[in-house]
Amino acid sequence: MSGVKILVAQGGGPTAVINQSLVGVVLESRRFGHVERVYGARHGVRGIINEDLVDLTQETVHNLERVAATPASALGSTRDKPDLKYCQQIFEVLRAHGIGYFFYIGGNDSSDTVRIVSEEAAKTGYALRCVHIPKTIDNDLMGNDHTPGFPSAARFVAQAFAGANLDNAALPGIYVAVVMGRHAGFLTAASALARKFPDDGPHLVYLPERTFVLDKFLADVKAAQARHGRCVVAVSEGIHDASGTPILAQLAKTIERDAHGNVQLSGSGALADLLCEEIKSKLGIKRVRGDTFGYLQRSFLGCVSDVDQREAREVGEKAVQFAMWGERSGSVAIQRVGDYAVGYELVPLETVAAKTRVMDDAFINAEGNGVTDAFAQYLRPLLGSGLPEAARLRAAPVQKVLKR
Amino acid sequence: MSGVKILVAQGGGPTAVINQSLVGVVLESRRFGHVERVYGARHGVRGIINEDLVDLTQETVHNLERVAATPASALGSTRDKPDLKYCQQIFEVLRAHGIGYFFYIGGNDSSDTVRIVSEEAAKTGYALRCVHIPKTIDNDLMGNDHTPGFPSAARFVAQAFAGANLDNAALPGIYVAVVMGRHAGFLTAASALARKFPDDGPHLVYLPERTFVLDKFLADVKAAQARHGRCVVAVSEGIHDASGTPILAQLAKTIERDAHGNVQLSGSGALADLLCEEIKSKLGIKRVRGDTFGYLQRSFLGCVSDVDQREAREVGEKAVQFAMWGERSGSVAIQRVGDYAVGYELVPLETVAAKTRVMDDAFINAEGNGVTDAFAQYLRPLLGSGLPEAARLRAAPVQKVLKR
Repeated sequence: MSGVKILVAQGGGPTAVINQSLVGVVLESRRFGHVERVYGARHGVRGIINEDLVDLTQETVHNLERVAATPASALGSTRDKPDLKYCQQIFEVLRAHGIGYFFYIGGNDSSDTVRIVSEEAAKTGYALRCVHIPKTIDNDLMGNDHTPGFPSAARFVAQAFAGANLDNAALPGIYVAVVMGRHAGFLTAASALARKFPDDGPHLVYLPERTFVLDKFLADVKAAQARHGRCVVAVSEGIHDASGTPILAQLAKTIERDAHGNVQLSGSGALADLLCEEIKSKLGIKRVRGDTFGYLQRSFLGCVSDVDQREAREVGEKAVQFAMWGERSGSVAIQRVGDYAVGYELVPLETVAAKTRVMDDAFINAEGNGVTDAFAQYLRPLLGSGLPEAARLRAAPVQKVLKR
Repeated sequence: MSGVKILVAQGGGPTAVINQSLVGVVLESRRFGHVERVYGARHGVRGIINEDLVDLTQETVHNLERVAATPASALGSTRDKPDLKYCQQIFEVLRAHGIGYFFYIGGNDSSDTVRIVSEEAAKTGYALRCVHIPKTIDNDLMGNDHTPGFPSAARFVAQAFAGANLDNAALPGIYVAVVMGRHAGFLTAASALARKFPDDGPHLVYLPERTFVLDKFLADVKAAQARHGRCVVAVSEGIHDASGTPILAQLAKTIERDAHGNVQLSGSGALADLLCEEIKSKLGIKRVRGDTFGYLQRSFLGCVSDVDQREAREVGEKAVQFAMWGERSGSVAIQRVGDYAVGYELVPLETVAAKTRVMDDAFINAEGNGVTDAFAQYLRPLLGSGLPEAARLRAAPVQKVLKR
């Protein structure tokens, strides 16, 4: 044959390192002599069905390296969650362009798309290798120790809480910050890595893995305030009551739902504001401030874990290696093999597709309002090198003259 | 006399570099042989009247340098805005402890406190030098080219918008982010420095220096959306209607007021949410997301301008120099003397006290929805070195096969 054509695309929410994976695929593919073209689809699967493709073979290594260091999806992304018919359209385009290898960088929805497209190709006997490359700040993919994108977002959350804790210590009050994560609390839990001294915040951490009880929350805040004269709280946007109803939906008057009927949790400061209102009105505390980290935690330019960068690059490279040398389809998964070192495996798409991993019980404290040392040990090496550190004054008190 | 005692304190909202100024005062004071003690007041003027003082003479240079590199007010801060009686109490404590030099790091309210305390000392003939050291992320002090704290916060805002713009380009829609600044729009305007390519966001910037008209805003968003297929908007929390009423107060059902009767603008995501609601309902656009940068923009650990760090250190050092060598009271002011270089002057406290500087007309575009090149030229050198940069793919489109 004259040569092989490769297609790569990015799906779902952007991350700080998803372009590392893209560039890993492009540069590793270009090392293989029989690869004739490396195409990219603009805006994920939508770009495929619209035949909105670009030729990445014609991009310079220099610029690709700079794109790799840039957050967000350089090819553009999509929220489309293809059904069977959509996947058949994807396959039609792949076949029309003579694509032999399809790489899709994304979360669990994206891996399900890869699975269906792969099955469609198999049905018709068309030789297509399909590899899903993991990516999600939520860290919720099965079969992975962790997922590219999560460590950098976790670093942002840790740095944000470290600063917010200092600010709150300077001007005491209650501070509530809402972190992304609908079902998995990993990113919210990362706030705990902001702590250095025993009285540092966050003093409380609420995760979607546990039922959120408003009265218990208020009692926790009251106790922390009594103990520290202030309180910093990390809350996952996905907190819910015993029935699974998001607390946002419970407290808010109007709510937005996405195409899949899920309550739209991100892109609004409502949950933080509503929790602050509860604290003000029920506990009578005056200085109560709420922040919602919003899109900053996945897009902020200049906050990235170098460990995450390396791994995101390597899952892209390994995807090509698995496909080329092993002629296998599947999903690339990160395994922890040392403290700290990782290895990569190609796992069946079914392992990852449309499934959600949540935090282990061992990572959550008994009270359900904080994380354990096991979680800190799990997360710390992922945050990367050069993490900024906070220092405190330790100066001796001066004896009072006027008021003894 | 046996030796001189110095008191330093920090007031108002913390910044990324206010501890540089503190450490500048402490280390520079300790170089003077006749300085016996350098005291710090915990939580600003409140710590003074409560005699809650610490002895910074007993702190190591090593730890002081690490504290200097830590954001937020290491001594603690306060929102207290002393009246005459409060200032008399401050003076009583200063006299009781034999303080000869009083340094207060803060914004325009803090400089007013310094002015009144200085006058009280003069009335009684007590020898007290009082120096105000500038600090505010709002950049709203008269007599200064810019103020320490602003450049680092501006850098955060620029990095945040650079990332948000990439995210918005990957998943197109409308993105509105609210930035701090009640009367002065400098920090919101800093968002414009996120732009690299002509079609980069923020596409619209709304400042408190101009009257905000909701219909005009909606028309602007509609036009930008038509042009770019997406729109990134920077909005100051202080935007107001023609009567001066904050837009937040106009749109929101319940509002909080501070001790001075001002509407509480920060610490809530309400303004962004309300503007998003208007866009959704009036323009019928579906994907509309709002963020409020909140406390992150002044407290985030690890986002700092090195130019800001150096200048914040130097205003602390210069304050001591002015007080010791010149035996003068006043407010340290930063002047721009080269491109880029600064000099420091001691200006009368009246120049700064309780006054507010806003953006020059030359910095705001004619339409009142963006900033000029003159502003970019003013701000760029302040952002410091090593600012991360975004890169784009430039790959060639692939010819369609199925749909020509």
